[in-house]
Amino acid sequence: MGEVKHLCLVKFKEEVLVDDILQGMTKLVSEMDMVKSFEWGKDVLNQEMLTQGFTHVFSLTFASSEDLTSYMSHERHLEFAGTFMAAIDKVVVIDFPVVIAKPASPAPAPPAAA
Amino acid sequence: MGEVKHLCLVKFKEEVLVDDILQGMTKLVSEMDMVKSFEWGKDVLNQEMLTQGFTHVFSLTFASSEDLTSYMSHERHLEFAGTFMAAIDKVVVIDFPVVIAKPASPAPAPPAAA
Repeated sequence: MGEVKHLCLVKFKEEVLVDDILQGMTKLVSEMDMVKSFEWGKDVLNQEMLTQGFTHVFSLTFASSEDLTSYMSHERHLEFAGTFMAAIDKVVVIDFPVVIAKPASPAPAPPAAA
Repeated sequence: MGEVKHLCLVKFKEEVLVDDILQGMTKLVSEMDMVKSFEWGKDVLNQEMLTQGFTHVFSLTFASSEDLTSYMSHERHLEFAGTFMAAIDKVVVIDFPVVIAKPASPAPAPPAAA
């Protein structure tokens, strides 16, 4: 069994200081050893028809589903989840085992000399 | 500027053969050099309140926003997009520069001998 991802798409409430939420999440995740990696991003194309109003993506990677469960039920995650849920207008959460259909290649070799 | 991701959350129509769509997408992406990597997954927790009915995630990674633009406007992508859009009940698409807030560590070293 490979990696498992916990993915959240979020639309924040208008008055929310998103930077504060991001700082809190980064701090929490950096201190939780069962979180293998964490990346996030903000939509840049702003096509409402496609984004449905969602603006941010948060993606946590775990080495196993046990680590995901351990994180989700951890006291500190639950505490942060309360703050997080109060800050959002809507959210979609998907948890899935990662299927790598096209792996990233290593950095390309320099072109061969002619 | 780092990597850019093109993320789709999807709910397929009931009668759709998802495996066929997945095969088509994997084939397309494997043949498009500007797609750096492609991973997908199917939600396993099935909590309708959280997933809003979305079941699948598709995540394409590009080395740059230029590569994303090149992919999105490519004839073969547009052709596949027609098939894809006909197969889905709903979709959310987010395009974002990736911010790595907690990088994955290298594989841990074996424990030191006592």
